[in-house]
Amino acid sequence: MSIAHEMLDTNPARTGFDHRALAGCIDACFACVEACVACADACLGEEMVAELRRCITTNLNCADICDATARVLSRQVGYDAALTRALLRVCSDACGRCAQECERHAGMYEHCRVCAEACRRCVEACDALLNA
Amino acid sequence: MSIAHEMLDTNPARTGFDHRALAGCIDACFACVEACVACADACLGEEMVAELRRCITTNLNCADICDATARVLSRQVGYDAALTRALLRVCSDACGRCAQECERHAGMYEHCRVCAEACRRCVEACDALLNA
Amino acid sequence: MSIAHEMLDTNPARTGFDHRALAGCIDACFACVEACVACADACLGEEMVAELRRCITTNLNCADICDATARVLSRQVGYDAALTRALLRVCSDACGRCAQECERHAGMYEHCRVCAEACRRCVEACDALLNA
Amino acid sequence: MSIAHEMLDTNPARTGFDHRALAGCIDACFACVEACVACADACLGEEMVAELRRCITTNLNCADICDATARVLSRQVGYDAALTRALLRVCSDACGRCAQECERHAGMYEHCRVCAEACRRCVEACDALLNA
Repeated sequence: MSIAHEMLDTNPARTGFDHRALAGCIDACFACVEACVACADACLGEEMVAELRRCITTNLNCADICDATARVLSRQVGYDAALTRALLRVCSDACGRCAQECERHAGMYEHCRVCAEACRRCVEACDALLNA
Repeated sequence: MSIAHEMLDTNPARTGFDHRALAGCIDACFACVEACVACADACLGEEMVAELRRCITTNLNCADICDATARVLSRQVGYDAALTRALLRVCSDACGRCAQECERHAGMYEHCRVCAEACRRCVEACDALLNA
Repeated sequence: MSIAHEMLDTNPARTGFDHRALAGCIDACFACVEACVACADACLGEEMVAELRRCITTNLNCADICDATARVLSRQVGYDAALTRALLRVCSDACGRCAQECERHAGMYEHCRVCAEACRRCVEACDALLNA
Repeated sequence: MSIAHEMLDTNPARTGFDHRALAGCIDACFACVEACVACADACLGEEMVAELRRCITTNLNCADICDATARVLSRQVGYDAALTRALLRVCSDACGRCAQECERHAGMYEHCRVCAEACRRCVEACDALLNA
């Protein structure tokens, strides 16, 4: 069981979200922050950095949005369903765009391939939570 | 001229956003982070903390969403209009909810009054940018 | 192999840090952010919230410091050894203090027990990296 | 009076720090985040981006460390003097290094000149608080 899942099970507040789907989404968001911060840096170090500008910005934006989403999702006390759902949709969108951008370079840069996969998993986790 | 405005004017990339409205929104978002982080802490220190739980969560969520929004808005290179607009709407929503919650306690707690004003200014700045 | 480890192995830049120790520390920092954000919220929801004030602040501070440390450690390009080491020492210190505070409530609150363990693992990972 | 100063004056907790110096440091940290996030983006957009790699990383690290420092400084409840002072020293160091790096390009890039000034003001504010 992940840390997020253990924390949800021991939180005195309840949001109505299924804990497995919610913990899966929190974990996927943090993993996406981890991948995107690292991918922005790896792209910056590449010889062709000038052609990776859009990828770097997309990574940095995706990291910041996933970070905020993971933190909001982790808060069960005073939970706001409408705000959470709106943020989840933006997060899914940001991850989908970042996956798409990274996939354009995935054949050439292994870090973009790994990052695209983390973004795709986060899209799936956000969408699963929205449909739960 | 604010730091955000000076930075936009000297950035080699252009997004099409009016710099005055864009800088005003970046400044308002950072000011809202500043107010919300401090208001969450001040609420935590109040004797009636148990009745301020929702206010604390709303503050923390608002701070995290404004932080991500300010950072995304500050990036002009590889700018994504659709993502930015979706995030701006969520940010305006989060600030509006936080203002509303803080206003409920504004007569009793001066920090909630100051925070509600920072949130209202951020709502206005986000909406002005969305309508620019 | 964790995402952090895969990203380090595919980054064109090299810092001289052992990748296993560095990835372990990045992972531990992000896991600590996850635990501390959730523990602050769980403490806020407890009936005895007034007695958990210090624990909540310690959690929030630890989360913010671990977040910054994880991001700095993830950047290999233009790496600065002295700054990184100074930040690692502060992070280890913040996690040690948070572990200690959570351990005081670990018998009563399961979320504090889980969080204290995440903090202890982060102390170990920071210290291992400092001694690597 | 700045938002940070108003929030400190209305916070029920007291840390012993002089409010003027403390608010000045919180404001300077947030202004430095604002400048550094924007300078990293402006550098990324420059034709000579390959020669600005170190500047971009230094900006991103400085932004993350200032963000964490501003948040920790904003929390008066359960205040920890030793941790705060250690973090302030790292923040002053990160800002000093970022100022130095930006000053190398300040003649060529106006955004680096503006950013270096924000970093220098943050060094001064951190040092003033450490000596207060």
